[in-house]
Amino acid sequence: MQTLRVELGERAYPIHIGERLLADASLVLPYLDLPRVAIVTNTTVAPLYLQQLSAALRSQGVEVISIVLEDGERYKNWATLNRIYDALLEQRCDRKTTLIALGGGVVGDLAGFAAATYMRGIPFVQIPTTLLAQVDSSIGGKTGINHPLGKNMIGAFYQPRLVLADTAVLATLPPRELSAGLAEVIKHGLIRDEAFVVWLEHNVEKLLACDAETLAHAVRRCCEIKAAVVAEDERETGVRALLNFGHTFGHAIESALGYGEWLHGEAVAAGMVMAAELSRRMGFIAQTDVDRVVALLKRAKLPVAQPGIAPARLLELMAVDKKTEGGRLRFVLLDRIGAGSIRDQVPADLLQQALATCAV
Amino acid sequence: MQTLRVELGERAYPIHIGERLLADASLVLPYLDLPRVAIVTNTTVAPLYLQQLSAALRSQGVEVISIVLEDGERYKNWATLNRIYDALLEQRCDRKTTLIALGGGVVGDLAGFAAATYMRGIPFVQIPTTLLAQVDSSIGGKTGINHPLGKNMIGAFYQPRLVLADTAVLATLPPRELSAGLAEVIKHGLIRDEAFVVWLEHNVEKLLACDAETLAHAVRRCCEIKAAVVAEDERETGVRALLNFGHTFGHAIESALGYGEWLHGEAVAAGMVMAAELSRRMGFIAQTDVDRVVALLKRAKLPVAQPGIAPARLLELMAVDKKTEGGRLRFVLLDRIGAGSIRDQVPADLLQQALATCAV
Repeated sequence: MQTLRVELGERAYPIHIGERLLADASLVLPYLDLPRVAIVTNTTVAPLYLQQLSAALRSQGVEVISIVLEDGERYKNWATLNRIYDALLEQRCDRKTTLIALGGGVVGDLAGFAAATYMRGIPFVQIPTTLLAQVDSSIGGKTGINHPLGKNMIGAFYQPRLVLADTAVLATLPPRELSAGLAEVIKHGLIRDEAFVVWLEHNVEKLLACDAETLAHAVRRCCEIKAAVVAEDERETGVRALLNFGHTFGHAIESALGYGEWLHGEAVAAGMVMAAELSRRMGFIAQTDVDRVVALLKRAKLPVAQPGIAPARLLELMAVDKKTEGGRLRFVLLDRIGAGSIRDQVPADLLQQALATCAV
Repeated sequence: MQTLRVELGERAYPIHIGERLLADASLVLPYLDLPRVAIVTNTTVAPLYLQQLSAALRSQGVEVISIVLEDGERYKNWATLNRIYDALLEQRCDRKTTLIALGGGVVGDLAGFAAATYMRGIPFVQIPTTLLAQVDSSIGGKTGINHPLGKNMIGAFYQPRLVLADTAVLATLPPRELSAGLAEVIKHGLIRDEAFVVWLEHNVEKLLACDAETLAHAVRRCCEIKAAVVAEDERETGVRALLNFGHTFGHAIESALGYGEWLHGEAVAAGMVMAAELSRRMGFIAQTDVDRVVALLKRAKLPVAQPGIAPARLLELMAVDKKTEGGRLRFVLLDRIGAGSIRDQVPADLLQQALATCAV
């Protein structure tokens, strides 16, 4: 097991990375106020890992209740959030009950927002079970739900007390989910670490084959990058926005298709190609750089173009994205492979061209 | 104008108290990120003060949108909160838009929670227009909504950047609302400041008559007490719980009757009598102290007994209150007039007796 720390002063917390951590309740116990937890998971993960986690905790005298949600981005909404609140209230959970998210990004975002807002905040632990959640969404305290008018529009910054990334669970991940996670892995390299991009170019097939050691390295490197960025800028007033590379475009794709049609990572992959294309048109990178991004994403079995949505519709959806400021769109572009930067001076015609080029 | 500060480090903020502050946009301008605000108010306050505030801000070049909600505690729910989100999204409000709450406790709690959670948090200003909101709910960052199973169960701690208490607006307050506010005024005295209780015993009729100078003194003293308590314990891990004096009982009364049947301050008044009665049965205060509490509340035209709810029903509702810990009820009781304390060792029979005595 390896341990990193997200350095956030009084809100600092560890990320444990390793195999078969789920069965080791002693990793969780030090973070509970009282021996009582509510595990939030979904119908896909529950049959695989809920019993194992519950049994481990119960064997240490922890009272466990579980809340099993429907699986999918389309359920990341108020109705599902309310199911968590209802269950917590019906089970008389109080401020000393710890909420544990056992699942992917959707479960983590929903459970995290429930933890942030139930009785104005209760203890929270992340146990991410997808690659995407282990490398990205479980770290950094972004929580929330979607609104019909925009993704992640309602939410809170709320840090977990602990992140437990059990890489053994990635073995049961469907290939499509694994690829979606690789989109965020590649993102971390593209914005901050060219050496990691090179490593990915050498190892992407091993990652797709679920090679344990290779996956563990990718998870650790992404967690290092993300933890450092979050520690520098918890509330995304500056550098943290780099982590949104591909996301302004990606969120618009997800909104246009209806949540859950494409996986989040798939939309981000297509969005990163758009962002790379725009970076080229702005003169920051060369065509060979764009080709390199496209090639790596393709090898990771990810889409590299959006599915034919009219550019005007994408623009409309991008205009309500959280990353606008004073009505002006902000973009995360590439200065080079391994270095992202935030830009708000993007000529409309170049943006239009980038959107049109990328349309299938 | 007088200015107090709530000392919360990087989240510190001023409370301006004075007459006709609403019309002075220069008090608000320094706290805006961009000259764009969304004013959340209700159908009662809007005809009285929305125009005045909007005009003052617009004259300084601030873009103003307004969101007018239904009036009443029964609207402090998800549906109303969602109306705020919808309006903000439809008007393309981004993270630099400041949300202003113009109204009483319900508007402040709803708008504050919307500000805490819209795009994971936007700037927030409180302009309380009721006595209750000026002396209590606008200060300290408690925001939230009710759940059918319990009051204020969903919420966040989220501090405003500024509180603007314009005491001139209290002149239009209906007598019942003024009395409800006096319940929280009296509460501040009972838990922390016997001299203020004595002052109230001399001045309660002047307060009911809306004497400007007397009201201004009461608002300032309550803000001083509340600001000091909040600065000491922002997240209610200790002393801040004293401010819940009368509230565990009061919330149960509100839940049992249906939100809005009694005003919050009315339920708190009856709850404070129950808490005083329980304090007497625990041997902390004398019958003469209980009589003194009852007499002051009566003079403030507040109820001093709950409206005939079965004690068993109240107990059931109290068990889901946020102030339970590990399944154990916690009570704020009086050690003497002017000194509250938190107790979790209350014998069930004494509690039953106190509930039964207070039933009409």
